[in-house]
Amino acid sequence: MDNTSHSNLTWREEARKTIFQCPVFSVRESSCRSPDNGLRNFTVLDAPDWAIVAPLLETPRGASFVMVRQWRHGSQCLSLEFPGGVLEPGESPEQAALRELREETAYTPGKILRLGAFNPNPAIMSNQVHFFLAQDLRARGVQNLDEDEYVDVEIVPVGEVMRGMGSPPYIHALMGSALALYNRYENESGW
Amino acid sequence: MDNTSHSNLTWREEARKTIFQCPVFSVRESSCRSPDNGLRNFTVLDAPDWAIVAPLLETPRGASFVMVRQWRHGSQCLSLEFPGGVLEPGESPEQAALRELREETAYTPGKILRLGAFNPNPAIMSNQVHFFLAQDLRARGVQNLDEDEYVDVEIVPVGEVMRGMGSPPYIHALMGSALALYNRYENESGW
Repeated sequence: MDNTSHSNLTWREEARKTIFQCPVFSVRESSCRSPDNGLRNFTVLDAPDWAIVAPLLETPRGASFVMVRQWRHGSQCLSLEFPGGVLEPGESPEQAALRELREETAYTPGKILRLGAFNPNPAIMSNQVHFFLAQDLRARGVQNLDEDEYVDVEIVPVGEVMRGMGSPPYIHALMGSALALYNRYENESGW
Repeated sequence: MDNTSHSNLTWREEARKTIFQCPVFSVRESSCRSPDNGLRNFTVLDAPDWAIVAPLLETPRGASFVMVRQWRHGSQCLSLEFPGGVLEPGESPEQAALRELREETAYTPGKILRLGAFNPNPAIMSNQVHFFLAQDLRARGVQNLDEDEYVDVEIVPVGEVMRGMGSPPYIHALMGSALALYNRYENESGW
C-alpha cells in the first residue's frame, strides 16, 4: 500500500510557488514529474488542518447528536452540521475539536475518541480534516462565538441525521464523512 | 427547515467579485450583510460540480467495490477512491458519473441509482458533488484516460473499504461521504 510499490502511478514534485493568498487559504502552483518523466503544473490549495466532532447525547428520544445550524457563505444557505473548525496555531486536532464543541454548543465531553482523518479533497487540497466522537456530554456555561458567527444548537436523533444526509439542511459533505466513521465505530464488531 | 424560518441566522450577499482564476476553480470575494446588519467580506471558491460513483460488483469474495488508485497532487500521495470527476459543460451529474466510471475502469452498469448530493465544503465552496451507486456491472473495452492520468483499477471487498476509511490509502473525505450514503442505502429499512 505504500508509494514505492506503485512506481507506475507515482509523481514527484520538483518546484512550487505561491500564486495567491487570502486569510482562509493560499493557492500554490506545483510543478510535477510524471511516471513517464513528463513535467506538468498543478494548482493546489494550502490551508490549516480542520477538526470536526460528532457529539453524542443520550436523550429521552434516544441517541442524538448535538448539531449546529449556521449560514454558510460558499453555499449561500443554512447548513446543519457537527461542530468543527480550523486548528489554531500550536493546537492539536483533539484540542481544536474540544474547543469548537465548547464554543459552539457549550457542551464538554467526559470522553473523546479519534474516529479517523481524511484529506478534504486530495486532488486540490494539502490539509487534513480530523474526526472525533464526543460522549458523556455535560452542558457547561454558554456559547462563546466569534464575532459575526451566528449559530443555533439543535439536538437531533441519530436516525434523523442518517436519513437526512445528502439533502438540505444536511448539505456539508464532511459531515457525511464523519457519519461514515461513526457508522463504522457503531458497527465495529459487525464487519 | 427553510431559510426564512431562521432569520436570526440568515445573511444576504450584496456584492461579489472574482479575485483569482485558474483552470480548476476561481476565487470570489463576497460582500455579505449579517443578521445584525453588519457588512463583512468572505472568500469563496467557485468550481464546476463533481460526480462520484460507487461501483458495486458481486465477486467470489463477496460484494466488492471497483476502485481506482491514483496519485493526488494536493496530498502528494496515492489515494484509493471511487471513480469520479468534474462535470463537463452540458453534462448531467448521472452522465458524468457514467462517463467517469467508463473512462477510469471500463465498467458499464446495468443500473445506476442517485444516492444524494452534498456541497464539498459549504463554508468556502459554492459547487455540489453528486453521488451514485452503480450495479450490474459489465466490463467493456479498456480504460480511456486523460493525458497525464495514471490510474490502477482494484476490486476491494466492501468490508475492507469500510474498515479502511479514514486511514491511508482511503484518504479522500468525499469517499467517506459516498460510503455514508451507501450505508444508508444498504440499511434503509433498518433506521
